[in-house]
Amino acid sequence: MSATDAATTRQDRFAHGLEILTQVDGEGGQKVVDSLADISPELGHQVVAWAFGEIYDRPALPPRDRQLVTLGMLTALGGCEPQLEVHINAALNVGLTPEEIVEALLHAAVYCGMPKALNATFVAKKVFAERDLLPVRNQ
Amino acid sequence: MSATDAATTRQDRFAHGLEILTQVDGEGGQKVVDSLADISPELGHQVVAWAFGEIYDRPALPPRDRQLVTLGMLTALGGCEPQLEVHINAALNVGLTPEEIVEALLHAAVYCGMPKALNATFVAKKVFAERDLLPVRNQ
Amino acid sequence: MSATDAATTRQDRFAHGLEILTQVDGEGGQKVVDSLADISPELGHQVVAWAFGEIYDRPALPPRDRQLVTLGMLTALGGCEPQLEVHINAALNVGLTPEEIVEALLHAAVYCGMPKALNATFVAKKVFAERDLLPVRNQ
Amino acid sequence: MSATDAATTRQDRFAHGLEILTQVDGEGGQKVVDSLADISPELGHQVVAWAFGEIYDRPALPPRDRQLVTLGMLTALGGCEPQLEVHINAALNVGLTPEEIVEALLHAAVYCGMPKALNATFVAKKVFAERDLLPVRNQ
Amino acid sequence: MSATDAATTRQDRFAHGLEILTQVDGEGGQKVVDSLADISPELGHQVVAWAFGEIYDRPALPPRDRQLVTLGMLTALGGCEPQLEVHINAALNVGLTPEEIVEALLHAAVYCGMPKALNATFVAKKVFAERDLLPVRNQ
Amino acid sequence: MSATDAATTRQDRFAHGLEILTQVDGEGGQKVVDSLADISPELGHQVVAWAFGEIYDRPALPPRDRQLVTLGMLTALGGCEPQLEVHINAALNVGLTPEEIVEALLHAAVYCGMPKALNATFVAKKVFAERDLLPVRNQ
Repeated sequence: MSATDAATTRQDRFAHGLEILTQVDGEGGQKVVDSLADISPELGHQVVAWAFGEIYDRPALPPRDRQLVTLGMLTALGGCEPQLEVHINAALNVGLTPEEIVEALLHAAVYCGMPKALNATFVAKKVFAERDLLPVRNQ
Repeated sequence: MSATDAATTRQDRFAHGLEILTQVDGEGGQKVVDSLADISPELGHQVVAWAFGEIYDRPALPPRDRQLVTLGMLTALGGCEPQLEVHINAALNVGLTPEEIVEALLHAAVYCGMPKALNATFVAKKVFAERDLLPVRNQ
Repeated sequence: MSATDAATTRQDRFAHGLEILTQVDGEGGQKVVDSLADISPELGHQVVAWAFGEIYDRPALPPRDRQLVTLGMLTALGGCEPQLEVHINAALNVGLTPEEIVEALLHAAVYCGMPKALNATFVAKKVFAERDLLPVRNQ
Repeated sequence: MSATDAATTRQDRFAHGLEILTQVDGEGGQKVVDSLADISPELGHQVVAWAFGEIYDRPALPPRDRQLVTLGMLTALGGCEPQLEVHINAALNVGLTPEEIVEALLHAAVYCGMPKALNATFVAKKVFAERDLLPVRNQ
Repeated sequence: MSATDAATTRQDRFAHGLEILTQVDGEGGQKVVDSLADISPELGHQVVAWAFGEIYDRPALPPRDRQLVTLGMLTALGGCEPQLEVHINAALNVGLTPEEIVEALLHAAVYCGMPKALNATFVAKKVFAERDLLPVRNQ
Repeated sequence: MSATDAATTRQDRFAHGLEILTQVDGEGGQKVVDSLADISPELGHQVVAWAFGEIYDRPALPPRDRQLVTLGMLTALGGCEPQLEVHINAALNVGLTPEEIVEALLHAAVYCGMPKALNATFVAKKVFAERDLLPVRNQ
C-alpha cells in the first residue's frame, strides 16, 4: 500500500504501478504507455507509477467503485472518448456488467445533459461490439 | 402540452415525443434514436419521450428560439460536434437562415473564445455544404 | 419501474419521483425543489418526476453506485458546489462511508486534476463538519 | 456597421461600443468596465470596443436573439454566474419575458444537465427578485 | 501598438493582424482563415484583425510567453485538438523547444488531469512527427 | 531531480515536495495542505509529494514558465477561483510582473472568451489589492 514507508526507487514504483495497471486496464493501458515512449516517457511513467501505483492501488475504494467514478468523470469532462474506450474496457475487466455501464451512462444524462451521455454511450457501443456484447437490453 | 393531467402510458409519451422530434430534427433525430436500439434503448426513449415530448413540446418558447439557445449551449460545451450537426440541421428546419446561424456562432467567439466558435462554424460548413447552402456571406 | 406501461398522470409521476428523491437526498432535495417554486416550478417538477421518478428509480444500478457516478460527474463538471453538497449528503444517506467519499474525490485528481479534486473535497469537509464526521483519516 | 471602411480611432471604436453596451446591458455592463479600470483597462476596452462595438453591433442577429444564444452559452460554460446576472438583466432589457428566460434555462437541462440549469435558474431568481418580477409561473 | 490613436480602416486592421498571424502561426493560421471564406468570412476577419492585430500584437507579453499560456488553455478546454495542432506549431515557431512543449503538457496533468494531458500530448506527437522532431526525451 | 534512482520513502518525497511548494506558492500552498489535514490528508500528501515534488521539480521548464501555463489552465477550466488566487500569488513569487499576469489574462479572452477572462482578472485584482499592487496600467 502506498502509505507504507519502505524506501523505493523510481523503477520500483513504476513496476508496482504496472501490476495494477495491467489488472485494471489490461492491454489498453499498456498501449497508451507504449505510444508515449517517443514523445513523453515521463507522462507514461506518471500514469503508471503515480495514477496506478499510488492512487488506484489504495484499498479504500475497490476497483469496481473506481470505474464507476471514472465513467462519471470521463463522461462529464467531454472530449475524452479515447480514455472512455480504455475505461469502459476496464469497467468490464473489474466486474461491471454491460447493463450497469449503460445504466451509469444513462444516469449521466441527468447531470451532464443528453449530448455527453450520447457521446459516452456510443463509445460503449464500440467497445461492446468489439467484445461481442451487443445487444444490451437496458429495460 | 406537458402540463395537462391526462393519464398517459410510456408508449403514449414516446409517440408524442416522436412527433415533436420529427418536426424539429427531421431524420437526424430518428437516426440517433435508431443507433441506440442495441446499446441503450432507454436513452433513446428518454431523448424522445422526455427531451422532445416534455421539454421541446412546451409552448413558452417557440422552436426557432430553442435552437438559438441550443446552438449556444452545444458550442460552449465543446466536444459535441455530432449534436451540433443534428441541431444546425434542426435550426434550418425551424426557420433560422444560414446567415443567422453563422452569426450566432460568431457571437459565440465573445463568450466561448475563438476555438469553440471555429469548431462550431466548421460543423455548420459541413451541414451547409450537404444542403447546398454555401457560400454564406455574413457581411 | 419506469418501463411498465400503466397510464399515469403528471401528478402520479411527481408523487412517485418524490418518494425516490426523499429516500436519496433527504431534505436536501426537497429544499431545492421548494426554492424553485416561485421561479421555475416546471424545473422542480422535472427534477422530481423525471430525474428521480424515471432515472434514479431504475433498478439496474443501486443507489450507492449511482452516487459514485454522480460524485465523479459533479467533480468533473466544476462550478457545481451546491449540487455536490446535496449529493455528498445523498452519498452518506445511501451507504457510502466518509472514507469512501474522500477516496472517490482523491481518485478524481487523476482524471480532473488537482483543482477540481480540491474544490470537491472542501465541499465534503463542509458536509462532514455539519454531520460531525470529522476528522476523516484516509490512510 | 462594422463592415464599413471608414477610418476610425481606438477612441471612436470605444465610443461606438459604449452606445451598444448601454442599450443592451444598461448599467450592469458599465459597472463591469468601471471595475476593470485599475486592473485591466485594456480588457475593459476590448469588452466595449470589440465585443459590443464589433460583434453585438452587427445587424445579422437582433439583440433578443443574441441574448438567447448568450444565455445558452453562459449556462453551459458553468462558473459564469456574474456574467449570467448581467445578461439575464440584458435579456429583460432587449425584450425577453421572464417566462421566456426561465423556459430557456429549463431547456438547458436537456443539453447541460440539471446542475447547470439549476445554477442558472437561481441567478434568474436573484435578478427577478431585484426587479420585482417574482413569482414566475412557467406552466 | 494597439493603443495608439491613429485612425485605421477595417482593411488596415486586417492587414496589420495578418502580419502578426504569419509571424506566429505560419501557414497554419492562414489555412484556418482561408477555410472560413465561404462560411464565415467575418470570423476569419476577427481572428486576424482582433485576436492577432489587437491582442497578440501587444508588447506586454512576448510571443513565447503567449504560446505557453495558449497551450495551457487549449489543453484545459478540451476538444480543441485542431487548435492545439496550430498552436504547437506556433509554439515551435516562436522558440519553444519540443522538450519545453512536452513538459508544459506534462505539467497540465496536475491541473487538468491525465486525459486532457494525454490528448494534448498526442497532438504534439503528430506535429513533431510531421516536423521530424521525434523522439523527444523528456527526462 | 525526479528522474534519479535513489530509493526514497514516502516521507522523503513529501519533504522534498514541501521545499518546492514553499518556493513557489509561499504560505498559500501550505494553507491548502493544512486545511486538508482533517478531511483528506492523502490529497494533501499528493499535492505536495507528487505535484510539487515530482512535476514542479523538473528542470525542463522554469517556474516562471510553469505559472504562465498554470494561469492559462486555471482560467480555461473555470470555477477554480481559489486556485487562481494561490497561483496568481505564485506567479508574482516566481517573477512574473503584475503587467504580465494581467496581459496573460487578457490573452485568455481570445481562447476562453470574455467571461472566464473577466473572472480571472477579478481574482488578480483581489490578489494585487492585498499586495498593494494596484493600479496596474496595461497599456
